[in-house]
Amino acid sequence: METAEPGVRGTVPAQPAAYAPTDRTVPTRSAERASYDKEVVHSILDEAYLCHLGFVRDGAPVVLPTLFARVGGVLYLHGSTGSRPLRMTGQADPGLPVCVTVTHVDGLVLARSAFHHSINYRSVVVHGVAHQVTDPEEKSRALDALVDHVVRGRSADSRPANRKELAATAVIRLDLAEVSAKTRTGGVNDEPEDLELPYWAGVVPLRKGYDAPIADGDLAAETPVPPYLKSL
Amino acid sequence: METAEPGVRGTVPAQPAAYAPTDRTVPTRSAERASYDKEVVHSILDEAYLCHLGFVRDGAPVVLPTLFARVGGVLYLHGSTGSRPLRMTGQADPGLPVCVTVTHVDGLVLARSAFHHSINYRSVVVHGVAHQVTDPEEKSRALDALVDHVVRGRSADSRPANRKELAATAVIRLDLAEVSAKTRTGGVNDEPEDLELPYWAGVVPLRKGYDAPIADGDLAAETPVPPYLKSL
Repeated sequence: METAEPGVRGTVPAQPAAYAPTDRTVPTRSAERASYDKEVVHSILDEAYLCHLGFVRDGAPVVLPTLFARVGGVLYLHGSTGSRPLRMTGQADPGLPVCVTVTHVDGLVLARSAFHHSINYRSVVVHGVAHQVTDPEEKSRALDALVDHVVRGRSADSRPANRKELAATAVIRLDLAEVSAKTRTGGVNDEPEDLELPYWAGVVPLRKGYDAPIADGDLAAETPVPPYLKSL
Repeated sequence: METAEPGVRGTVPAQPAAYAPTDRTVPTRSAERASYDKEVVHSILDEAYLCHLGFVRDGAPVVLPTLFARVGGVLYLHGSTGSRPLRMTGQADPGLPVCVTVTHVDGLVLARSAFHHSINYRSVVVHGVAHQVTDPEEKSRALDALVDHVVRGRSADSRPANRKELAATAVIRLDLAEVSAKTRTGGVNDEPEDLELPYWAGVVPLRKGYDAPIADGDLAAETPVPPYLKSL
């Protein structure tokens, strides 16, 4: 958390620790589950392997799973230059209105009543206008971030993209400004009069499970599994 | 697979085994990864705990994580009567154009080149127009399906919704018609000239991990964990 006092020479201006709520980011129900805290939002984003990118085409919504990475207050989304959302952005364009959503399922909530069944989850919804990244340096940094988002530390341990590969990859940029997180945690919320019913009630926790890495068949036998994979 | 011969008395008309591709469901790239096979599509949908529901509000896209269930060729999506997408449907309305997307992350694909890094995944995208379910019997069946989608067999082992709870729950219906699956499986696709590079390459498989169920604190101590939870 940055706590620089404004006006003190040599300090960085304090960044607000939360995103400002807007009409679109205040939920119509379960408002107590919403958060605008940057640390909460960023940790939910960083833990996800894919986001769901929503945009409008011919007046209808389209939602596509998409690789992404966060760099500070910016999301970079990955695509080929031929993919639909990327063809809709571009240097001359005003940008593409998008909604980017990330969700983790953390548990199954089994209440005694059908009505109170639920899912424990953490989600982030980002509204904004996406623009294609055209600056070569920014694009190169974004591609490193996309690789490091898959496994932290990996971009330094692989062959960087060459000019042809950079040209074949498109990246769109979405500034984090209109952002909210929503989470459900904890146990069942049964009605008091249901507590004596003879049904099991509780939560089944879910988590990501990683199996042992499978080496490529062409890999030299002595190649060690890198340390950044052992800590997954 | 249904194989009734047309015209044979007493047989059910054969259902096509695949969804018909449309302009919206043929991908602009990696077309070899697309599938319209109903068994493939249904198994991807059924394995997901949440979908991402996209719709258009004030001209901009909105994507929200949403509970859902499949019953044959129909998706039912859950919401409270106050939630935004549900307020936008309704008996007098022409329906709400939506896009429903479900994605599983199955593995991290670490190539020797940054460019060929990828994710193994299975996704389904459904386009269509959603309508609010108003028939009480259909709504009741849909709510059972939503509970059974969380854990199969659970709706028969919990208290059914009463009239007040039914009235407080809204369900929207989306027919499965314009549907496609897209999957990436297998290993790394490095360039031949990169195979000798000194970087580890391969796949880290991912799966859902379930931890032991946590019983509600108010549960009578002798209540057994139901068999449908032991098989998760």
